[in-house]
Amino acid sequence: MPIEGGNFRADQVSLLAGTIHQRCTDPRLGEWLEVLADSSLADDPHSDPGATISRLHRDYKRACRLTTELVEAMSRATVIGQQRWEVARHDQNFSHFKPALAEIFRLKREIASRLAEPDQSRYDALLDEYEPNAKASEIRQVFNDLRPHLVQLSQQILDARHPPNERILQRKAAKESQRKLSELAAQRIGFDFQRGRLDQTTHPFCTTLGPSDCRILTRYQEKWLPAGLFGTLHEAGHGLYEQGLRQDWYGLPPGSYASLGIHESQSRLWENLVGRSYPFWQHFWPETRSILGKTVQDLSLYEFWRSINTSRPSLIRVEADEVTYNLHIIIRFDLEQALLENELSVDDLPDAWADRYESDLQIRPPSVREGVLQDVHWSAGLIGYFPTYTLGNLIASQLLTAARDQVGDLDAQWRVGEFSPLLDWLRAQIHRHGQCYSADELIHKATGKPLSSAPLVQHLRTKYAEVYRL
Amino acid sequence: MPIEGGNFRADQVSLLAGTIHQRCTDPRLGEWLEVLADSSLADDPHSDPGATISRLHRDYKRACRLTTELVEAMSRATVIGQQRWEVARHDQNFSHFKPALAEIFRLKREIASRLAEPDQSRYDALLDEYEPNAKASEIRQVFNDLRPHLVQLSQQILDARHPPNERILQRKAAKESQRKLSELAAQRIGFDFQRGRLDQTTHPFCTTLGPSDCRILTRYQEKWLPAGLFGTLHEAGHGLYEQGLRQDWYGLPPGSYASLGIHESQSRLWENLVGRSYPFWQHFWPETRSILGKTVQDLSLYEFWRSINTSRPSLIRVEADEVTYNLHIIIRFDLEQALLENELSVDDLPDAWADRYESDLQIRPPSVREGVLQDVHWSAGLIGYFPTYTLGNLIASQLLTAARDQVGDLDAQWRVGEFSPLLDWLRAQIHRHGQCYSADELIHKATGKPLSSAPLVQHLRTKYAEVYRL
Repeated sequence: MPIEGGNFRADQVSLLAGTIHQRCTDPRLGEWLEVLADSSLADDPHSDPGATISRLHRDYKRACRLTTELVEAMSRATVIGQQRWEVARHDQNFSHFKPALAEIFRLKREIASRLAEPDQSRYDALLDEYEPNAKASEIRQVFNDLRPHLVQLSQQILDARHPPNERILQRKAAKESQRKLSELAAQRIGFDFQRGRLDQTTHPFCTTLGPSDCRILTRYQEKWLPAGLFGTLHEAGHGLYEQGLRQDWYGLPPGSYASLGIHESQSRLWENLVGRSYPFWQHFWPETRSILGKTVQDLSLYEFWRSINTSRPSLIRVEADEVTYNLHIIIRFDLEQALLENELSVDDLPDAWADRYESDLQIRPPSVREGVLQDVHWSAGLIGYFPTYTLGNLIASQLLTAARDQVGDLDAQWRVGEFSPLLDWLRAQIHRHGQCYSADELIHKATGKPLSSAPLVQHLRTKYAEVYRL
Repeated sequence: MPIEGGNFRADQVSLLAGTIHQRCTDPRLGEWLEVLADSSLADDPHSDPGATISRLHRDYKRACRLTTELVEAMSRATVIGQQRWEVARHDQNFSHFKPALAEIFRLKREIASRLAEPDQSRYDALLDEYEPNAKASEIRQVFNDLRPHLVQLSQQILDARHPPNERILQRKAAKESQRKLSELAAQRIGFDFQRGRLDQTTHPFCTTLGPSDCRILTRYQEKWLPAGLFGTLHEAGHGLYEQGLRQDWYGLPPGSYASLGIHESQSRLWENLVGRSYPFWQHFWPETRSILGKTVQDLSLYEFWRSINTSRPSLIRVEADEVTYNLHIIIRFDLEQALLENELSVDDLPDAWADRYESDLQIRPPSVREGVLQDVHWSAGLIGYFPTYTLGNLIASQLLTAARDQVGDLDAQWRVGEFSPLLDWLRAQIHRHGQCYSADELIHKATGKPLSSAPLVQHLRTKYAEVYRL
């Protein structure tokens, strides 16, 4: 956006946010929902009507706890926040962003205080927006279980004597070849191009414009193959979930994603657990060689597979590997709770960030650009969003472990390019339920167990023992 | 859009169109406008409040002549029309588009019949949407004056013994260099990058997202320099108009463009009358040589200038030159009137199109893709839109002729890179009036004369005598 365009955008966005809030808190809506909630339609909370009533009623009550003025102020603060964040990033100067960030946390504190139920912390109340019914205390427990394993494994990897050859991934590959390869990969795992598109962008994402119009966007880097290919598999994983939601309930709870954690589990499952697996590459290697030509001609499948599973502590979350990624998330999860609870001031944030990177990842950001200013989330008011990324990784592993029990020999299927048995299982277990079950319920129904760090730890230990010959 | 996404998009767009129509025809709005129209605020129709009342009242009365059902049906027909048009273009098969186009013209006939005032033809009633108060009969008169001159000049050009070297323009020029050059050109003529941006796209356009957020989009072709550079100057011309509208009246008649013809006059003026003039290139040549390097190093300014003014009858409107462009428009203007009045059936359209190209431009389209299916307009329900392009060319020449009288020696100014005197004059004569005067009134006020073909004919004859050494 041009620099002078910001104020009008803030006016527009806050007007829209206020208008939407007024509509969503219309007392008539509340009366109707009360009647419905007391009717037999709501008897089974997991039925389509029951889930619809319960979810809309919950959203209505949450909205009513906020004033339109507060919603407008929050919305304005985030438009300004994103503009200031961009300037601060460009200038590598945190102080340009600091007042806007302080205002965002001030407003979020007020919002959280108003939203919190008696059994919720303020952070829980914000988390609820992205991960309904989740509790920070429970997430912290799982993260605490996970963390020492990641730190230990990461250290073992650093000490490994026979690491894979990372430089393979920096070989030049024409963007057009990468595009072909990525499109083929998305198609192969089941993304429906009659009901979706794959295009290019600066920051990869997946968005749904209608029940049969799912857009995935990726970016290709000429000298960094994983960006385009695994970026596409990640977004296609989100897209498969969107395409698997029931079209006849589009826009209503039974046709909407259950939580951000569940959404991320689908993208991570296809990106990492399928897309970085050896059986997938046993299938996909001949086509890759034919499309990428010289870039990979001298490589064995095994060498290539090891290279795409390289792990190394790094500064930038979105470029992190499977092992270290979750350490980036845990840092953010801890810091945003401290900020919200006034245990950490915005003034001290850049140092706190750098200190945590040094202690957790043994690497200190040389600038705020590669440190605290790398993510857009806080500037956009997304507090309580970060943990859903690691929840996604945990859920993905737990789901895949269950699928291995229930679907048969997945490795053997992938080896011959059969991905539909797994997709069908995910459709039946997750996609078609929409919001008729909560994330916790879906996990329990599909895997028979509550969320646990064990499957992810097991997956990482097994794979990285092989990749790094530990 | 993915193929399966079409129906939902049609649902959405027609719902929105219907909702907007219902809001715009709210009887309370009519009552308020009646009161205002009878008040002293409306006494001076050229004052800000007077123009606001009169324009909003006119729009209100027009909207009330249509039913919401008709608006929704039209809107749905155009979404489907654009989808069918794409398929037909891809398959080079007009029959895939024919039923949708017939439906569009059927609905447009009904809309035009309802909208037409007693002194308006049905075509006038549609034209009114894009060129308020214009009459097809008057436009036809000016076009009839213009046409023989274009045909004659085009023939002289074809017969010229010393044409410029067209192949210069096909020389390879890196897109990044073209981008730099185009950005510099837009900046030089006065486009404000604090209040706007220049980006890349497939089909160039200009759009305004707020009073200080004007976006111009262009595309660069590695082996066709004019596409990017003159595309940018064209869109920047639109952008200068948008940036010259009064911000405090943004979204209301005094802060809105007067008509599409006036809008196009601004883009054509900067693209063709300034951007393809010799004085402009006397100024811009050294920078161009430095940015494009080898591509133009062996050329003289004069050779280069002649090449960018090449003229040749062609099939594709958007690629046509200054001389032949208006012949493309006159064909469309005639055909769409015949279609609307049922003097030509949709069945016979492809042949009628090809016949007119053969008689007017001595070139027959080898396929419908390069013939009747080349433009998106009719598929989008834009009937009565095409003539505004040639009106733009006519108005541009007439304005520039007047500016030469009133501003001083423009050529001398351009030669030293001074474009602000002309821009200031356009701001004062056109931009800051918004819709306080009609297009006709603006032309009369600025030039002292009604619209005429003479200035454009004079401009083309003088320039092309030099370029082709006629």
